[in-house]
Amino acid sequence: MDTTNLHLLSAVDAARLIREGAISSEQLVEACLARIRDVDAQVRAWAFLDPDYALQQARAADQFRLTGQPVGPLHGVPVGIKDIFDTTDMPTECGSVLYSGRTPSRDATTVSLLRAAGAVIVGKTVTTEFAFFSPGKTHNPHNAEHTPGGSSSGSAAAVAAGMVPLALGTQTAGSVIRPAAFCGVIGFKPTHGMISRHGVLQLSRTLDHIGVFARTIDDVALLAEQLVSFDENDPDTRPRARIPFLETSREEPPLAPMFAFVKTPHWERVDSESKEGFSELVEELGAQIEEVELFPSAADAWDWHRAILGAELAVNLHREWDKGRDKLSEALRTQIERGQEVRAADYLRARAQAEAANESFVELFEQRYDTIITPTAPGAAPKGLSSTGDPTFCSVWTLLGMPAITLPLMQSSNGLPIGVQLVGPRGGDARLLRTARWLTGKLKEI
Amino acid sequence: MDTTNLHLLSAVDAARLIREGAISSEQLVEACLARIRDVDAQVRAWAFLDPDYALQQARAADQFRLTGQPVGPLHGVPVGIKDIFDTTDMPTECGSVLYSGRTPSRDATTVSLLRAAGAVIVGKTVTTEFAFFSPGKTHNPHNAEHTPGGSSSGSAAAVAAGMVPLALGTQTAGSVIRPAAFCGVIGFKPTHGMISRHGVLQLSRTLDHIGVFARTIDDVALLAEQLVSFDENDPDTRPRARIPFLETSREEPPLAPMFAFVKTPHWERVDSESKEGFSELVEELGAQIEEVELFPSAADAWDWHRAILGAELAVNLHREWDKGRDKLSEALRTQIERGQEVRAADYLRARAQAEAANESFVELFEQRYDTIITPTAPGAAPKGLSSTGDPTFCSVWTLLGMPAITLPLMQSSNGLPIGVQLVGPRGGDARLLRTARWLTGKLKEI
Repeated sequence: MDTTNLHLLSAVDAARLIREGAISSEQLVEACLARIRDVDAQVRAWAFLDPDYALQQARAADQFRLTGQPVGPLHGVPVGIKDIFDTTDMPTECGSVLYSGRTPSRDATTVSLLRAAGAVIVGKTVTTEFAFFSPGKTHNPHNAEHTPGGSSSGSAAAVAAGMVPLALGTQTAGSVIRPAAFCGVIGFKPTHGMISRHGVLQLSRTLDHIGVFARTIDDVALLAEQLVSFDENDPDTRPRARIPFLETSREEPPLAPMFAFVKTPHWERVDSESKEGFSELVEELGAQIEEVELFPSAADAWDWHRAILGAELAVNLHREWDKGRDKLSEALRTQIERGQEVRAADYLRARAQAEAANESFVELFEQRYDTIITPTAPGAAPKGLSSTGDPTFCSVWTLLGMPAITLPLMQSSNGLPIGVQLVGPRGGDARLLRTARWLTGKLKEI
Repeated sequence: MDTTNLHLLSAVDAARLIREGAISSEQLVEACLARIRDVDAQVRAWAFLDPDYALQQARAADQFRLTGQPVGPLHGVPVGIKDIFDTTDMPTECGSVLYSGRTPSRDATTVSLLRAAGAVIVGKTVTTEFAFFSPGKTHNPHNAEHTPGGSSSGSAAAVAAGMVPLALGTQTAGSVIRPAAFCGVIGFKPTHGMISRHGVLQLSRTLDHIGVFARTIDDVALLAEQLVSFDENDPDTRPRARIPFLETSREEPPLAPMFAFVKTPHWERVDSESKEGFSELVEELGAQIEEVELFPSAADAWDWHRAILGAELAVNLHREWDKGRDKLSEALRTQIERGQEVRAADYLRARAQAEAANESFVELFEQRYDTIITPTAPGAAPKGLSSTGDPTFCSVWTLLGMPAITLPLMQSSNGLPIGVQLVGPRGGDARLLRTARWLTGKLKEI
């Protein structure tokens, strides 16, 4: 078989070829490492990378396969892990000098699940400082002068640049969907509580989500399928039946999906190119799309998000604040100081109102719409590396704990990708992927 | 059969006799109403009582039985309900003029469950103002110059005075255990989340518990058995297998229970009579009891309780505060004002620390002890009606969500009852009743 461009194989194809013995994990990982050597000097997606150790894992996977024992769904497939997920065999530094050289004694639950599925953990990808807003060193692979987005900057850029087919990230405001959109890959953040966050830096129990990056919907589905679990170490996970992400996502919807086009109260921030893109989308979808207003108090939802994030962040970064505040960025210090001032009553009201808002979506989804369609950001990745861009169009869905996916369906005039965000009802994760596939196919047809 | 003192029948006996046709519900309810006529002018346990309507329910129960259809476990048995549980057929005034004449459109989940079990809802019992500290009109049935305790004052007093065999109450600090102890009945507060609080005045989702009052352990078990449910309207309830309270509570423990005697950091508040009572108890239990220290940070637990209660109360009584604060007692106004000032970070830390403290009990219960034994209050019901007494010895177990029961095992020199509190591990409710029965039998033997 032709082994040029092995690094661009999808994870689904790669796993199959490795299983069948058509390629080795070592060949694949070597191809990815070669790609990293070629492009990462510019992109700078990795916080930690030991090529020999990645190859060692790949060779171990290859040897294991030769024993004839059954192999996992990601056997030999390379994955990048955001550097806020604990790993016992690599440092986990969370984008802060305070954690410099820290190597935890236990793997995050998700990392354990990936190892059990046979994945090769290639390295740790760059995160902003404590997965908040102060950028890391990563550049947008499409144009090095532009931000890759954040906070899962390295994961998005590594997948976009063909360095790995899969990567893990997290989202507390817009940290999966936004960088995926800016880098032109698919980013998927399942329902809150679907994937354990044990062993991952906690900013906000209420808002933190695990998310995934890939270049195909199949790959997103395959990766998500490995990660859903009940974990008594994450009190927001629940026992549930296995979710057949890949199978469901490949089904033809019995009816053409109905889309609710949500502009949000912040539509005025959206740039004219993106607005035009959405106009075309609306036209192309015809009777399958209708504009829908968010719940009446929607304009306040961003304040709820701010109150919850502020309060929980102040508690979760308490030790860092007490002992090392001079080593934190000024932006983070300001945020923690603000968070310390949040009143419990405002915090509790914010949580209660978000919960009440969720009720309005139950009706929306049950009565008429399959999926919300909405921007991921005001436009393509902004120029400059001092900011990771605006999370406004993501944070409300994070607040509501609803599953969201971004698809690289539009492009700006300067050649940068623009993502289209689809949002489903809580628990409707696999069907959201099905709708995403339907939409991608529909727009290719046109 | 002899129908004198029908009002003193246990609920278990009454339900059996009604089921067998030996007595009618009407006879029983009439006996209870006669008792109320005799003693309630002094005790004043009822916030609402319509004797004709209670009899009407009893006659309907009798007629239903005659149809030969199966009847519920509480068929025809009178129950008193604290006046913060919503009832569609009686006012629910929560001890405040702000709620004067309010009749809700739906029953509380627990009230529906009691009706489904066949109970006769005799009336609504007196609560302190909004189930907080400002006393209602109820007197202690053992001595009218003493407080009955609160906030479930009427329920405790009504059961103690023989007006009803069963009553419902709630506990957010010490509002079930304390009044039950002061009135000399059994009070039982199951594990947090065991009984739905839907349709009950909410002070604090984290701390509010439903509890029950009765004069025998059998009756406590029978009543609790009707009330445990999964209710999607109370997010802290969970689906679970039926708990056979009555059956389990009647089993002989396979080994004599081991008791952990917990003095708490507030032992110095306990009066000398109670201290002496506990000394005797320790002596009598011999090798079956050992003194145990609470977790290291225990002295702070009361602050955690205060922070959580303050913050959640301020949110939950927000409307009353905004629109009717001049109609609230000064004590409640002060409490709400304080609650409004609680920082979210302190609130969240309090919750996290309580959760962590709970872990220390897992070990304690798994390794050596069946039950904690500890005071219910500094002593017997204090003299005077301006205060409902000190909840200190209850609130820590409320904070921890652990099941607690008080047994009227001691007496003060002035003839007032003193309760002994047993506390079990979360979820160990039925076994706690079994231990309570063992202890009661053991002390009778001596």
